[in-house]
Amino acid sequence: RRGRETTLASRRFVSMADMHQAALEWTITAENWSGPVEVITALDARVINQGVARYRELEGRHLHSVTSRTSSSDTISLIAQTRQSRIYVAEAARTRVYGESGALETDRSLYQMEDYIHQTLGFNLQQGQSIRVEKLVSFYTSHDQAINEPLTNAEKAVGRFGSFDEALDHHRRAWNELWDDCDIRVPNDDRVQFLLRFHASHVLQTCSPHTADLDVGVPARGLNGEAYRGHIFWDELYIYPFLNFRLPRITRGLLRYRYRRLDEARALARDAGYRGAMYPWQSGSDGKEETQVVHLNPRSGLWEPDMSQNQRHVSAAIFYNIWHYLQATGDTDFLLSAGAEMMIEIARFWSSIAHFNPTRDRYEIHGVMGPDEFHEKYPDSHEPGLRNNAYTNIMVAWLMNIAAGLPDQLPERRRRSLREQIELTDQEIETWKEMSRKMYVPFLADGVISQFEGWENLEELDWAAYREKYDNIQRLDRILRAEGKEPDRYKLLKQADTVLLFYLFRQNELKEIFERLGYSYTSETLRKNVAYYDARTSHGSTLSFVTYAGVFLEIDLTTSWDRYMVALESDVGDVQGGTTAEGIHMGVMSGTLDIVQRSYLGEVIRDGILYFNPKAIDHLRGLNLPMRFRGLLIGVTLEDGRLRVGAEVDSLNRSVKIGVGDQVREIRSGESYTFDL
Amino acid sequence: RRGRETTLASRRFVSMADMHQAALEWTITAENWSGPVEVITALDARVINQGVARYRELEGRHLHSVTSRTSSSDTISLIAQTRQSRIYVAEAARTRVYGESGALETDRSLYQMEDYIHQTLGFNLQQGQSIRVEKLVSFYTSHDQAINEPLTNAEKAVGRFGSFDEALDHHRRAWNELWDDCDIRVPNDDRVQFLLRFHASHVLQTCSPHTADLDVGVPARGLNGEAYRGHIFWDELYIYPFLNFRLPRITRGLLRYRYRRLDEARALARDAGYRGAMYPWQSGSDGKEETQVVHLNPRSGLWEPDMSQNQRHVSAAIFYNIWHYLQATGDTDFLLSAGAEMMIEIARFWSSIAHFNPTRDRYEIHGVMGPDEFHEKYPDSHEPGLRNNAYTNIMVAWLMNIAAGLPDQLPERRRRSLREQIELTDQEIETWKEMSRKMYVPFLADGVISQFEGWENLEELDWAAYREKYDNIQRLDRILRAEGKEPDRYKLLKQADTVLLFYLFRQNELKEIFERLGYSYTSETLRKNVAYYDARTSHGSTLSFVTYAGVFLEIDLTTSWDRYMVALESDVGDVQGGTTAEGIHMGVMSGTLDIVQRSYLGEVIRDGILYFNPKAIDHLRGLNLPMRFRGLLIGVTLEDGRLRVGAEVDSLNRSVKIGVGDQVREIRSGESYTFDL
Repeated sequence: RRGRETTLASRRFVSMADMHQAALEWTITAENWSGPVEVITALDARVINQGVARYRELEGRHLHSVTSRTSSSDTISLIAQTRQSRIYVAEAARTRVYGESGALETDRSLYQMEDYIHQTLGFNLQQGQSIRVEKLVSFYTSHDQAINEPLTNAEKAVGRFGSFDEALDHHRRAWNELWDDCDIRVPNDDRVQFLLRFHASHVLQTCSPHTADLDVGVPARGLNGEAYRGHIFWDELYIYPFLNFRLPRITRGLLRYRYRRLDEARALARDAGYRGAMYPWQSGSDGKEETQVVHLNPRSGLWEPDMSQNQRHVSAAIFYNIWHYLQATGDTDFLLSAGAEMMIEIARFWSSIAHFNPTRDRYEIHGVMGPDEFHEKYPDSHEPGLRNNAYTNIMVAWLMNIAAGLPDQLPERRRRSLREQIELTDQEIETWKEMSRKMYVPFLADGVISQFEGWENLEELDWAAYREKYDNIQRLDRILRAEGKEPDRYKLLKQADTVLLFYLFRQNELKEIFERLGYSYTSETLRKNVAYYDARTSHGSTLSFVTYAGVFLEIDLTTSWDRYMVALESDVGDVQGGTTAEGIHMGVMSGTLDIVQRSYLGEVIRDGILYFNPKAIDHLRGLNLPMRFRGLLIGVTLEDGRLRVGAEVDSLNRSVKIGVGDQVREIRSGESYTFDL
Repeated sequence: RRGRETTLASRRFVSMADMHQAALEWTITAENWSGPVEVITALDARVINQGVARYRELEGRHLHSVTSRTSSSDTISLIAQTRQSRIYVAEAARTRVYGESGALETDRSLYQMEDYIHQTLGFNLQQGQSIRVEKLVSFYTSHDQAINEPLTNAEKAVGRFGSFDEALDHHRRAWNELWDDCDIRVPNDDRVQFLLRFHASHVLQTCSPHTADLDVGVPARGLNGEAYRGHIFWDELYIYPFLNFRLPRITRGLLRYRYRRLDEARALARDAGYRGAMYPWQSGSDGKEETQVVHLNPRSGLWEPDMSQNQRHVSAAIFYNIWHYLQATGDTDFLLSAGAEMMIEIARFWSSIAHFNPTRDRYEIHGVMGPDEFHEKYPDSHEPGLRNNAYTNIMVAWLMNIAAGLPDQLPERRRRSLREQIELTDQEIETWKEMSRKMYVPFLADGVISQFEGWENLEELDWAAYREKYDNIQRLDRILRAEGKEPDRYKLLKQADTVLLFYLFRQNELKEIFERLGYSYTSETLRKNVAYYDARTSHGSTLSFVTYAGVFLEIDLTTSWDRYMVALESDVGDVQGGTTAEGIHMGVMSGTLDIVQRSYLGEVIRDGILYFNPKAIDHLRGLNLPMRFRGLLIGVTLEDGRLRVGAEVDSLNRSVKIGVGDQVREIRSGESYTFDL
């Protein structure tokens, strides 16, 4: 009706207080007219996956219809089932209309199919009057615990759902509690403050205290989009550290997700002729390998072979994640019930995929690739994988040293039963010790680590020419292939590979690993490696900026901060040109949060002591963040030239040891201490 | 074929190593004939519940058929679905036949319906020859974690299932590990030794490390029968203590099962007009009240009203269970994440169901019943429940004292957020403190506690006459009702009610509770109460013998041991005449194990110290048992006049404090100490 002015104010949320609740409120105001209004409230199971353009030719229907019904006059409900995995999904929606003097009676008519149901609510609106519509929804799946049947429980729950305002209030309180644990405060830079909160809010939507008790992993693209089909990759390496120090229950839940899939990782190793546990590069529901074997190049329209499942380094990342979770939490129970078994089985896998080369007197690993996905194999070779990826081999040298000492850290009874159960021998442990001293690492000239053996034979790319020819060369692989060239022919990287080592380990840790291996590590090693690889990295993965921001900190604060800002702005600005709509990048979002503690505060745990080594960055003046270390919540504040650490009041009277340089203080519940920097 | 002699040897197991595995082996020997043999291997989803005669008129079909199929030549599989709760249940069976020189090819024919499938395996047998048939089965449900779809995963798993012998070996090793944690050794009495192991084996079949991670409670009748329809009652009070000190992960899992149903307990309280959490007397899948409201009397054939849901004391039992779990384990994480919230909500419920009687200057609780099910109401009354059941009121006085101190034990941050979340006020805590000092307890003459207010007005029963008239008067309620008499008219008890207090608490604990309440507790209180109630107890519940065995220990060792032996023999001998076939009695089985530590060793935890006060019972000479206290495994051995406590070697270098009388020793990992008694 021409000329009618209507105001619609909408509020909606999915509750952080109750994972089964969502709600929607519409306030409709007739500004200059009076008359009848109809509002349709529906539940729809005909939804299909169509959020990623290049997947649209794949099957996008994932739901079977089951039934819909009305369980009371103001409630509609619906249950559907996933087509392959037989999971039921049920929703019930109660819709009520409120005028200024309370609930209104409305005409309701019903439209109902097996997989769709709606009520039409009719009422009259007077000029200037506002009407509020509350649609409260309960959601259950057959994977939920403590339920009877998903549809019945959804209906029961929506019947008990209070008002929109009450539920919103609970939702807000739950978020406030999360912010108390997670808010990194940066008073000196509003943009950074905004982006950190933006990232934390997304991380906590995908990994929340609710998901901690579910059998769910952390999908690389969050729960926001369909890219990567919800698969679990290695991004956990970037995602866990932020959570380890704030909500370790979540990390523990994610690690248990991996533990429940240990048998599948064992089967994957066995089927490939290895021992122990080989975690898949991409996985889903039951933990089997789900990596695609062909990949569509949108530039050429061709399906190209995909060998990325040879990124065996995911198993090293899982080992690293367990170890760092244990360092941050001291969670002995997890170590005994799951962690030790996983770490040992991963070490066992690495010792079986490696072989001893008597000529070099070194252990070597062939047929794998590193994180850099531009190199899946040698040029002109049909064999997938490379020889001696340095990142992989050094991670293995590191983890073998830990794994070899692990059995001795277990209580006698658990050690005995675990050894029996997985038939672990002393001989294996001896081999692991040897591998920690004898993994082979290839080098180029002048102390630069070679990304893999044979890197030196590749061609240099004419970077200037490509930068001139293309607006964006992040996905140089697609560009080169569309030109008929194989990226594996060139000295180029999609993302940090070798350089990642300098991000994951402190320099003194790396020095120790190198010296144990009998390789030299000098004060110039980091600088030379970063310089060499930075010049050849296209940053085709957003994670690359996170890594380079961290490693540049040791070289040049400004470059580090520039890279950091790219990473911080990458999802909000959709720097990859369209990928954010397909799902946020969990690794970058959580990695940019972690970098504040890991790099800018210089956090590291040694011998049960949490050390800081802050960098003086003007943007971070007054930085203040909460950290949970070994059960105790502490607040860390960076003041000019000083670092203040205060511990919460804790009736259990726990304490933590905090160090800055040579100063180490035991800080008890309720105490604080200010370190001079 | 007349005259043919055939030997069939059968072995079968459900694996303790892998909860998805079961296996069956038949060895068939043709002693004096040669000829063709057919073996049928089937999966059958047409099973119905018909194990309890008096339930047979109720619906016993719980499965819908879905589909059956053959996934490879030697594998059949089947998936069905529960009719109401929509849970899928899938099985796959691989059957192979082995001769003396390895696997045999056999003829296989198939018979297949939606809910039943079998293969017929045909082969020839020569005289004197043995043939071995292995049927390996994998089992998954849609509630399992880390699966894709139950049928597919069952088929994948059975394909990876090794041989019968390998799987049996893993099964044995898993049981050996459990026995290391759980075996109570009684070298001086073979019968008791046998029965304790019999009970432990049943307890561990129902509550195992596998169930710890599932959303399952502990059904009163185990997993062995259909009695009580799998419902969860209060028997946990008797079941947890044995597990708390051996496999606390299991108790923790069971407590989390309760925690996940806290919202349902809140709803139950709210719907009844109370605050906090009122746990249901009987519950199942989603934790709602499932107690029947009528009950069939097999003696009279009549359906009689059942008011047993007024046994609100189940919520006190849950509080007690949480508290004692925390005492045995020191599991702060559970306290913070679930335990405190449950305890506070339970206290809140009790403070809302109680009312203050200014005349008495006491808090009273009306309309509930105690554990004794012969008294659901007053004679001739139609109102369910009784006034001031002493057991309930004293449990409430005890728990209020703990609940009031609980918030101060939480770390500041958790205290603040929990208080906000559940809107806990200082006023409430003040009321709890007051209730711990002012609960009303009714007394008869001479310091005997009155089971409830008004007990003194009931009639004495002519026990001698009934004992003469009936072989077994355990279920006097059914006998009296069949005679047209109401049991609530008489001074008689089905099972320990008031007396249970002397089992759950040490005398000095009770003295403290009584003195806080301003009631007198003398050295004669226990003896007088036990004597009074023992003379009036029919022991209609097997749990009653456990309780009386415990309390008689303070009066007369011989009587205690006699009662104990009745409890020990009750399931193996089916003393209730047929109830064991309907399901074992978990409370008795676990209670008889607990009594060894609780009563005969006199275990109690005070101020984080585990005290022992052993009784000299000849049957228990040389008693030796493992206990896990606050994470550390210790072995406790009762020698003549001495008690030896040794701690396992534990690289975490934990220690525990052990006391006997005034002697308290800190025992470190790897150390042992012998106390003189």
